[in-house]
Amino acid sequence: MTVVLSPLKESISDFLQPAYYSKIVVLVDNNTRKYCYPVLKSLLPKHLLITVEAGEQHKNLTTCEKIWQEMTRAQLDRHALMINLGGGVIGDMGGFCAATYKRGIDFIQIPTTLLSQVDASVGGKLGIDFQGFKNHLGVFTQPKNVFIDASFLQTLPYVEMRSGFAEIVKHCLIADANKWEEIRKKDFETQNWPDLITHSVEIKKKVVVQDPTEKGLRKILNFGHTIGHAVETYFLSKPPKQRLLHGEAIAAGMVMETYIAYRKKMVDLQTLEQVEEFIFSVFGKVAVTNADLPTIIALAQQDKKNRGGELRFSLLDNLGSCAYDMKVTDAEIRQAAAYYVG
Amino acid sequence: MTVVLSPLKESISDFLQPAYYSKIVVLVDNNTRKYCYPVLKSLLPKHLLITVEAGEQHKNLTTCEKIWQEMTRAQLDRHALMINLGGGVIGDMGGFCAATYKRGIDFIQIPTTLLSQVDASVGGKLGIDFQGFKNHLGVFTQPKNVFIDASFLQTLPYVEMRSGFAEIVKHCLIADANKWEEIRKKDFETQNWPDLITHSVEIKKKVVVQDPTEKGLRKILNFGHTIGHAVETYFLSKPPKQRLLHGEAIAAGMVMETYIAYRKKMVDLQTLEQVEEFIFSVFGKVAVTNADLPTIIALAQQDKKNRGGELRFSLLDNLGSCAYDMKVTDAEIRQAAAYYVG
Repeated sequence: MTVVLSPLKESISDFLQPAYYSKIVVLVDNNTRKYCYPVLKSLLPKHLLITVEAGEQHKNLTTCEKIWQEMTRAQLDRHALMINLGGGVIGDMGGFCAATYKRGIDFIQIPTTLLSQVDASVGGKLGIDFQGFKNHLGVFTQPKNVFIDASFLQTLPYVEMRSGFAEIVKHCLIADANKWEEIRKKDFETQNWPDLITHSVEIKKKVVVQDPTEKGLRKILNFGHTIGHAVETYFLSKPPKQRLLHGEAIAAGMVMETYIAYRKKMVDLQTLEQVEEFIFSVFGKVAVTNADLPTIIALAQQDKKNRGGELRFSLLDNLGSCAYDMKVTDAEIRQAAAYYVG
Repeated sequence: MTVVLSPLKESISDFLQPAYYSKIVVLVDNNTRKYCYPVLKSLLPKHLLITVEAGEQHKNLTTCEKIWQEMTRAQLDRHALMINLGGGVIGDMGGFCAATYKRGIDFIQIPTTLLSQVDASVGGKLGIDFQGFKNHLGVFTQPKNVFIDASFLQTLPYVEMRSGFAEIVKHCLIADANKWEEIRKKDFETQNWPDLITHSVEIKKKVVVQDPTEKGLRKILNFGHTIGHAVETYFLSKPPKQRLLHGEAIAAGMVMETYIAYRKKMVDLQTLEQVEEFIFSVFGKVAVTNADLPTIIALAQQDKKNRGGELRFSLLDNLGSCAYDMKVTDAEIRQAAAYYVG
């Protein structure tokens, strides 16, 4: 897997010129079709375009069936190429469809959101939601290439940028204390995005190469995500206006999980306060109440990282360092949530 | 992947004793539940049983959804084990469900038909049918183990034994001329099944290890299958009584594809006649008529092995030897089918 950070015009042309594909299919949602596809279209030979509805609520088997049907109707063979142009939903779902069509065709990811550029597009985790559980069905398959073009971020709304920033914060906290120092001393508006994208991709690649299928080390990338995913899933059942973006939920998860690490004496009070202060300053506080907690805790128990009913977390054991497979009790989650709710 | 040919009592106990799995789930169909599950049940600790309808017509997304739902309801985590007890449908579909549940849990195959013992259970090809195309969705994932217990064959109907025999014939024809000599001189009834199972598994393993994802050599295992699959798929639309077993279709495919090899001067007339004579003596002739041919040819064009619209076949270039990626024209298929119809 190669990750290339450069204008699409260069990366895609360099890739396609020597490659032989029998057909090319591009997957977009109605947003990327409007804002991003015009750029890609002019760089591609004849291809099939598949459009799906935008949004996490469409990342499911029903949409996959639609995609597989269009691939079948176009008589794509095993030597076809799929290009996923969009955020995490398009990359995860399109990658899953490509990886399972005729037992797998090549695909490339062109992430168009900050979140997918610094996280989802790298690492080969593909999948869809099922019965309310995030990424419940999926596979690990590396894309042929990931092409990141930072110019797509120009049309990205502020809240989407901020959502992606949560994963950048995570990468600093689990793997690079110096970078953490650097970002926390700047305002959100003055961050150096191309530099941070490169930094995040490098950290993620380094971890994923060592442990592609998450048997060990890769689990550190889940810091903030056990509680964060539960919070995110819980808010999916709320009215659209109250829903959370992924990064907003992960930001809340990082605060709660740092509190657990503090209670386990893995980090000191100063670290907890530093993490909390910066995250609150950028993301504010998610509107979780005491009444929400039982459901959120139940959802965390369904997390893919658990083992035989025991909850396992990835927890900071210092700034820039993370431990994994740490046993956490229901009581500890409750304490953390109570601390967060305040 | 380890393939063990021994009574289940030994193989499964040796495997489970040191292994740690958070939960065990067994997938059966209504036939294997009745005839095979009682043996397995007594050898397993507490487990979840999932039963699906028997038959290729249930090897689809709808059944997968049912299986995934039951796995989810049982709160299986990533450290659960799935045991697929049945023929090719159960192995292919159960393996696919296991390989995609939470991005993959361990699974073992316990094939209960001759066909699945000598073919489907070995090699990691998993999948389901989609929109009338066989194994159109799937992945390559190796099972943790394959446990073959020949005693399951005692309850297997004659036509099912014969269907499995077609793959044994194929393995001899593509890879072992001596074994071909041996089997063709015996009646079906006097074949040495345990010896032939071992022989087939060894050939298949040797090929699969060299090329797990079918980029090259593994394609030789598709001998007889390009036309065979098309014939099989075509007959799926017929009334139940006229449907074909996999091996019956593959037997017809092997005759037609050997004819193509003969017309391409890859094998001589004597070889064609020898193959044809033996296959007809065991399998008889499938009731294909001239009216069926256009549809069968159209189906062959959707085959996963094709490239950019060109048909690619695996064809014998001698007894015990097979070439792959051979271009075949529509006209050659028509000639072969006309020859077969006679």
